[in-house]
Amino acid sequence: MIVVMHGGAREEEIEAVIKRLEGAGFKVHLSRGVVRTVIGAIGDKSRLELQSLEAMPGVEKVVPILKPYKLAGREFKPEDTVVQVGKLRLGGPEIHLIAGPCAVESREQLLETAHAVREAGATMLRGGAFKPRTSPYSFQGLGRRGLEILAEAREQTGLAVVTEVTDQAMAREVAEVADVLQIGSRNMQNFALLQAVGKLGKPILLKRGLSATIEEWLLAAEYILAEDNFNVILCERGIRTFETYTRNTLDLSAVAAVKQLSHLPVVADPSHGTGKRALVLPLARAAVAAGADGLLLEVHPNPENALSDGPQSIKPEQFSALVGEVAAMARVLGRSLARLQA
Amino acid sequence: MIVVMHGGAREEEIEAVIKRLEGAGFKVHLSRGVVRTVIGAIGDKSRLELQSLEAMPGVEKVVPILKPYKLAGREFKPEDTVVQVGKLRLGGPEIHLIAGPCAVESREQLLETAHAVREAGATMLRGGAFKPRTSPYSFQGLGRRGLEILAEAREQTGLAVVTEVTDQAMAREVAEVADVLQIGSRNMQNFALLQAVGKLGKPILLKRGLSATIEEWLLAAEYILAEDNFNVILCERGIRTFETYTRNTLDLSAVAAVKQLSHLPVVADPSHGTGKRALVLPLARAAVAAGADGLLLEVHPNPENALSDGPQSIKPEQFSALVGEVAAMARVLGRSLARLQA
Amino acid sequence: MIVVMHGGAREEEIEAVIKRLEGAGFKVHLSRGVVRTVIGAIGDKSRLELQSLEAMPGVEKVVPILKPYKLAGREFKPEDTVVQVGKLRLGGPEIHLIAGPCAVESREQLLETAHAVREAGATMLRGGAFKPRTSPYSFQGLGRRGLEILAEAREQTGLAVVTEVTDQAMAREVAEVADVLQIGSRNMQNFALLQAVGKLGKPILLKRGLSATIEEWLLAAEYILAEDNFNVILCERGIRTFETYTRNTLDLSAVAAVKQLSHLPVVADPSHGTGKRALVLPLARAAVAAGADGLLLEVHPNPENALSDGPQSIKPEQFSALVGEVAAMARVLGRSLARLQA
Amino acid sequence: MIVVMHGGAREEEIEAVIKRLEGAGFKVHLSRGVVRTVIGAIGDKSRLELQSLEAMPGVEKVVPILKPYKLAGREFKPEDTVVQVGKLRLGGPEIHLIAGPCAVESREQLLETAHAVREAGATMLRGGAFKPRTSPYSFQGLGRRGLEILAEAREQTGLAVVTEVTDQAMAREVAEVADVLQIGSRNMQNFALLQAVGKLGKPILLKRGLSATIEEWLLAAEYILAEDNFNVILCERGIRTFETYTRNTLDLSAVAAVKQLSHLPVVADPSHGTGKRALVLPLARAAVAAGADGLLLEVHPNPENALSDGPQSIKPEQFSALVGEVAAMARVLGRSLARLQA
Repeated sequence: MIVVMHGGAREEEIEAVIKRLEGAGFKVHLSRGVVRTVIGAIGDKSRLELQSLEAMPGVEKVVPILKPYKLAGREFKPEDTVVQVGKLRLGGPEIHLIAGPCAVESREQLLETAHAVREAGATMLRGGAFKPRTSPYSFQGLGRRGLEILAEAREQTGLAVVTEVTDQAMAREVAEVADVLQIGSRNMQNFALLQAVGKLGKPILLKRGLSATIEEWLLAAEYILAEDNFNVILCERGIRTFETYTRNTLDLSAVAAVKQLSHLPVVADPSHGTGKRALVLPLARAAVAAGADGLLLEVHPNPENALSDGPQSIKPEQFSALVGEVAAMARVLGRSLARLQA
Repeated sequence: MIVVMHGGAREEEIEAVIKRLEGAGFKVHLSRGVVRTVIGAIGDKSRLELQSLEAMPGVEKVVPILKPYKLAGREFKPEDTVVQVGKLRLGGPEIHLIAGPCAVESREQLLETAHAVREAGATMLRGGAFKPRTSPYSFQGLGRRGLEILAEAREQTGLAVVTEVTDQAMAREVAEVADVLQIGSRNMQNFALLQAVGKLGKPILLKRGLSATIEEWLLAAEYILAEDNFNVILCERGIRTFETYTRNTLDLSAVAAVKQLSHLPVVADPSHGTGKRALVLPLARAAVAAGADGLLLEVHPNPENALSDGPQSIKPEQFSALVGEVAAMARVLGRSLARLQA
Repeated sequence: MIVVMHGGAREEEIEAVIKRLEGAGFKVHLSRGVVRTVIGAIGDKSRLELQSLEAMPGVEKVVPILKPYKLAGREFKPEDTVVQVGKLRLGGPEIHLIAGPCAVESREQLLETAHAVREAGATMLRGGAFKPRTSPYSFQGLGRRGLEILAEAREQTGLAVVTEVTDQAMAREVAEVADVLQIGSRNMQNFALLQAVGKLGKPILLKRGLSATIEEWLLAAEYILAEDNFNVILCERGIRTFETYTRNTLDLSAVAAVKQLSHLPVVADPSHGTGKRALVLPLARAAVAAGADGLLLEVHPNPENALSDGPQSIKPEQFSALVGEVAAMARVLGRSLARLQA
Repeated sequence: MIVVMHGGAREEEIEAVIKRLEGAGFKVHLSRGVVRTVIGAIGDKSRLELQSLEAMPGVEKVVPILKPYKLAGREFKPEDTVVQVGKLRLGGPEIHLIAGPCAVESREQLLETAHAVREAGATMLRGGAFKPRTSPYSFQGLGRRGLEILAEAREQTGLAVVTEVTDQAMAREVAEVADVLQIGSRNMQNFALLQAVGKLGKPILLKRGLSATIEEWLLAAEYILAEDNFNVILCERGIRTFETYTRNTLDLSAVAAVKQLSHLPVVADPSHGTGKRALVLPLARAAVAAGADGLLLEVHPNPENALSDGPQSIKPEQFSALVGEVAAMARVLGRSLARLQA
């Protein structure tokens, strides 16, 4: 790390920093410029709280050199991680389509959607049984009954089930049904939940927080990896900016960046990312072109009666058209769409 | 609510919206402009998902007229809520200083700080036993041992204890020690946790999420109020913006705005809000001038050895000086600092 | 427009608003809900400042129904605008590649780059003669000499020249050389400059401001259109968010959204949009997949000696590879790359 | 500066960086950690474009050590700059109130306001003759006629005149009337304008850009200082964030931070900063408590008929009340309100 001293730092302040660094086992190098003194330190960062160093008198700032995540980085594991979901493999050359309604609303709604997206080319079914909602007065999901319906849909279609865990207390129960456990944006830094689901060993789809930096997102993944669970799928779902025309700003540069920084697979969610049905198709294409390993898409047979996220849900026939376009895009990139075996 | 139709909306699309609104019991008024048709609807919004309306063909947008929170609003309860913490009353004319270290690090550190801030004029002691940290490799708090130390500090000083709950599973245990349960920024929309702590009936200090709008913050409070627990203290602690010189951007207009929109008391945290010791004093003064009912301040006897938040922690003697300045400021505003009875 | 009155608005306040609206020639409709009174008004908005209405006693907010831009919208002109640049047509099915260095640094640098990008498939050459730089101590461009070099490059290669105007005083002089006048992000709301270049009648490439909403961007275009100059090419170049890993956040949903809201062509700049060479290719593909009509790309023969934007500049050979990938992407979308005639 | 090499940087890449740094006259120090090699360089940064270094193969990032502004920093000039405006001194212990309407709308409106704010305690009169407006269809100011009215108001009241220059071509003409030239937010990085007004030698009030970092703001000031004009007053007027309840987010931590980083005086504009009349008073108090040297306030005799910014304008009688509160606040801080001599 690099410790930059204030312009007017006194000699004893500089010495105090050096003494502390050396005391923690760091090899120190002092560099005196005309205006600033800079102290370089090589050693095991985990032996010292960087923040506390920054609190020492005369210190202007501390610049860390190494990335704060380890297990999630390409330096630790250069080759791509492929997450195994039953017989499916996400993170290899094949692109996965994870489709379904925002929330499980009824048996009919879910089964109809599941069969339709299965038919059109999805490999996994999304659908929330437990819904975290901004307002306590909004529909909160069917709960356990939703899980049962998801299980039935899987049985009928063979689609893997992706569903959200919002609550430690329910994690185990959700995991009995889910093939992939989703951690929503609002819970990206709910560390107790990350550790709890990490321990379950199941694949986890980790949505990026609404205002999380790429680094914080990878550190959230690190919480799961540190539980010895490497089955983590990252999901870019839009960040919060000043723009209000779209619900969020889908950050596709983050998709490309994370593919370079980390070995973990990344999928994108253009439904939440834009909040508008008419933008889902172009952004789905763009996400694949940016390097996404899959797409999370909200499909509803009847969006105008959806209990949540209607305006960003596409209909099954629109999903079919999208599958065709995305497949063509994948071919150009030397990839292909993953398929469920019949 | 107001439903704005697209410029080219067809007659049958307009009729479908009207039919649906009337079917849900709304009284409807149609207004045809040259370019747009607008449908006004009066009725019980809870009988219809607004989002689903926005998903209907021909609809451009739905503009809600009423605020989405109820119990948290001044329209529901015009007079200020005063939260009772033991014998202390927060939300009335007296301003409270809640001070202490970011984390409980040791018995010595906490007791020394507690006595110092008690002496200087604080009424409550802050200190985390469970610390949510961005990196899994950072100090995570002393856990249960931290709670014991907090309890001892209260016994010795009479200060009320404010400490964070990060985990539903631990909520009851933390509540046995805490006088005020803190919900941190990252958990502002951890709805399961909000409901769990709401049910405990204890005063709750609800920090604003890093990128939460004022409306979302009040809706998070609404989750607690809806559990019939009105002992909610809101805490502005800085939002995330593009600025990197400060750790966060302390949003003091939100303090003033929330005092107008809601009856709940509001405190401000200039330590997290700025991330820099040298900015704590001016922003503490400014928060009080903006109307805050209290301040949350990080005080550490030895910030350069703090295990977290050293750069933004002030020393006990700086806290004493701050108390004097804030007291003078309070007087000008016709308020005073709350005091513990000897 | 819709005027929403405060919950406690008095009868005479409601009447004052109605009187004022009727006085300005609006047809008014009153809707009294249980909690709020809402006043709908149909008429010519330009006869009344909406803001002043919002300042009337008892008014909570004014919700405009119509979009504030006219000429830039699809409602005014449903069919795509094709901007003619010499013999080139931008905005039709063909996708244009506008490539070159950030700044003209020398005759050799520019000519080498121009020939290389011409060879590889660009139709237009970008390069700044006047550079707006954050610091007064950074390289500010070659000025007039830069314009001469650009003119020579066009003569040798046939590429159309796109270069920035930063200064009203220089607008005419730049326009003598430029085929397309670029307005940079920092000047998107320099209205005096917009009007000045609008009057020149030349095609204008209007970069989105760093924190401009889509609506503000289209209103900036409206300033040019209102000068009766419809040759406007919009350019998405990344917005400012909290993310620091990338220089900006390239907002590709804005590309797709603007294609729907406006008839104007849109290009994307993945070089500024990401700030990192390794992200340029994936985001270039993604921008085309999202519907961009062209790409603005920084190409430098020797980025490590570039006087500006080296880290985001690609080399000519990387540009060639990019052209191939983008061409393949275009074909899938039923489009093709524009070509200069030999 | 510090050059951080990629984990896998090759020996010849490291050597190339060293050779380049030494060639530019830097003293270089190499530090090889286990994972990263870091190169420290001491020398004259202006001899090398940092960005180009970052473009060299094997380089991960370049970390500058020194602040990029010089003349604007406390290291260059430790003592506070006091800007002389006629007989008034802004930047010393006295706090100035700069009040008036957003725009000059008529002789009557301006004179009435000028007399009222003079009476109540303002020392300077604000009012725009040239208004930069988001929409070309909004009121754009009275232009030259507005300047005449401002001059008359000064003559009658003795108030110094603060008015905006939006256009290089008009700069000299505006300067003939203005005592302080205002550069608006949208023009903060209109460098041609900054240089043009800098050369005029008059005091300049430089508003912070909507999404400008503190560093960029000080670099914009640097453009003026570099013209040998040190009469710069910085003005914090709110930044753009995701919050929509307030028009902008008034960043009072920036006020306190800039007072520490720079010697230039800073004023705050709670009218634009909040966009809501009811928030102006608490934020005005807060700005002074945070250390502002003055306040810019929109006052209009009749906000509901204002041609711009009505909702955030206060009435003369509200201004009077505000003056009293701010004066009391100033006293607590050991300051006082500046007064015009009778």
